[in-house]
Amino acid sequence: MPKQNLDTLIESLLEGRRRSVARMLTIVENERPSKQEALARIFPHTGNAWVIGITGAPGTGKSSLVNVLAKTYRNRGKTVAIIAVDPTSPFSGGAILGDRIRMTELHGDEGAFIRSMATRGSLGGLARATHDAVRVVDAAGFDIVIVETVGAGQSEVDIVRTANTTLVIEAPGLGDDVQAIKAGILEIADILVVNKADRVGADQTVRGLRAMLELGHPSARDQFVAHHGRLLKVETPEVEANIAETWIPPVLKTSATKYEGVDELADKIDAHKDYLIASGDMNRLQARYIEIEVFERLQADMLSRLRDSVSQSLLAEVITKIQKRELDPQSAVEQLLANE
Amino acid sequence: MPKQNLDTLIESLLEGRRRSVARMLTIVENERPSKQEALARIFPHTGNAWVIGITGAPGTGKSSLVNVLAKTYRNRGKTVAIIAVDPTSPFSGGAILGDRIRMTELHGDEGAFIRSMATRGSLGGLARATHDAVRVVDAAGFDIVIVETVGAGQSEVDIVRTANTTLVIEAPGLGDDVQAIKAGILEIADILVVNKADRVGADQTVRGLRAMLELGHPSARDQFVAHHGRLLKVETPEVEANIAETWIPPVLKTSATKYEGVDELADKIDAHKDYLIASGDMNRLQARYIEIEVFERLQADMLSRLRDSVSQSLLAEVITKIQKRELDPQSAVEQLLANE
Repeated sequence: MPKQNLDTLIESLLEGRRRSVARMLTIVENERPSKQEALARIFPHTGNAWVIGITGAPGTGKSSLVNVLAKTYRNRGKTVAIIAVDPTSPFSGGAILGDRIRMTELHGDEGAFIRSMATRGSLGGLARATHDAVRVVDAAGFDIVIVETVGAGQSEVDIVRTANTTLVIEAPGLGDDVQAIKAGILEIADILVVNKADRVGADQTVRGLRAMLELGHPSARDQFVAHHGRLLKVETPEVEANIAETWIPPVLKTSATKYEGVDELADKIDAHKDYLIASGDMNRLQARYIEIEVFERLQADMLSRLRDSVSQSLLAEVITKIQKRELDPQSAVEQLLANE
Repeated sequence: MPKQNLDTLIESLLEGRRRSVARMLTIVENERPSKQEALARIFPHTGNAWVIGITGAPGTGKSSLVNVLAKTYRNRGKTVAIIAVDPTSPFSGGAILGDRIRMTELHGDEGAFIRSMATRGSLGGLARATHDAVRVVDAAGFDIVIVETVGAGQSEVDIVRTANTTLVIEAPGLGDDVQAIKAGILEIADILVVNKADRVGADQTVRGLRAMLELGHPSARDQFVAHHGRLLKVETPEVEANIAETWIPPVLKTSATKYEGVDELADKIDAHKDYLIASGDMNRLQARYIEIEVFERLQADMLSRLRDSVSQSLLAEVITKIQKRELDPQSAVEQLLANE
């Protein structure tokens, strides 16, 4: 894109023009050449939106809940952008959520913006693209950003660092067989929501979730922060502070179709925001997420440098030697780096 | 570990002594300092075992099937090592499969070896540790290695490159809600198994799986190979050959508890082995998996070099600047690499 066009696009994006938001999202999603420059230039204008991550298994009525929650924020005078992340299977390339007709209530509302993202490629790439998309709508001035992901893999784990408040949606009667799978997802929740609460078994689901919470696992954010690679050798005790000791994820009941419990949910999200800011956890977590992002970008950059510098003939030779068991993989790496 | 002790341990491992296998697995699993040297030295003795990966959702009777399949191989005069991978939740640190009392039939059998791995830390780390553990039992001379993983995340996707033949286990009556989650797992199967086939609905499950297979998705191995980062710039058409065109994953019925269909399963695994070798796909896939391994090890090595070389004070400064929105993450990375 010529420089002047990009200037105009960014200017118009920062004014919140819908067409520019859509165009910029296309640039980000499709890895267009101007992506990095555009993201660098809008970055100073980000950090103002409150980002709500919503995840849960298929069948929990997640998308309906996103709709009514967005509507609630609209009624409260907030502008809302929704990014629905539709991870394609890493193998088939097929979308998991599939096409959806949705958001009818928000249709034509200038203060609401909806985008589905179905990025092909690695799950890591999808997380990256989602993160960048959030920055775009954040820079465009939306008060609330809702990121909706299907709870079926790694993507819902990565959401904790994109979202300020993470909701995990459950529903009664989904069966026990998925419990083992759900266990890991539950722990990323800042707020747990039992949707379809008008159904039989809702109270039982609430009790089950409370029981799981009482097992006293460390908070997901702490674990996420602890498990990611570090560059800073000195871990400041501040950054590693355990925020779970003071915020116990509440379990709320909603019925999206009957519009019940949704105002209470929005209030609880506000309470979580107040808590994060007042406790200082907001600052500490953000510093850590930035470190993780820098770390990942360094990895990606170094790798593309390496790809350019490593001898292709040596590499092909080394692979053949490993396959013949004449060389082991780690020694091969040392040879390649020595010849760089 | 002193050099002489490591020499003795490796010698004894290569003779297949059980205690040495167990000790070496502990070294590998716990990232002991002698791990890299030990793996490098046993590497020339690997590549002889046939590695069977078995994955599937909780409730499919996977572990029982692993037991009887191992027993079948023992009856056929093959030695068998089982590595049961028990991924801890990335958040809670708790094991997903939990403790299991198992393998009673194989207890006391000198030709069978069983190890549960419950590595903490990242899923990537678990995949790495599993891969290394397979090399240890391979070097120890076991004919068959069975790697069992729970189908609940990224681990079952990584198994395709550790295993020569991947089985995906299903069972009747697990409910439709997990279908979306199962979709991605199905595609990694070289052989699909409907276990608990004595239950109502088994034939329906078989038909459902066949229908999904007929959707004609590209093979999981091809997709895996295509999606992983490359170092070799020229992709040899050989390596990228589509093996799915000739091996259509069969769907078999078994009942582990009634010992039905298990001999047929072992025969089908043999047929898959014959196919891979005769077609030349074995060679091509292994070259690609080695490239992926070299690529990942290069990444890890470069990162630890970077961690040593990057200025800690500059890094801390940069993170603060990003948090204040005075610098964007990508420009920060360029600064860090320029100052390296």
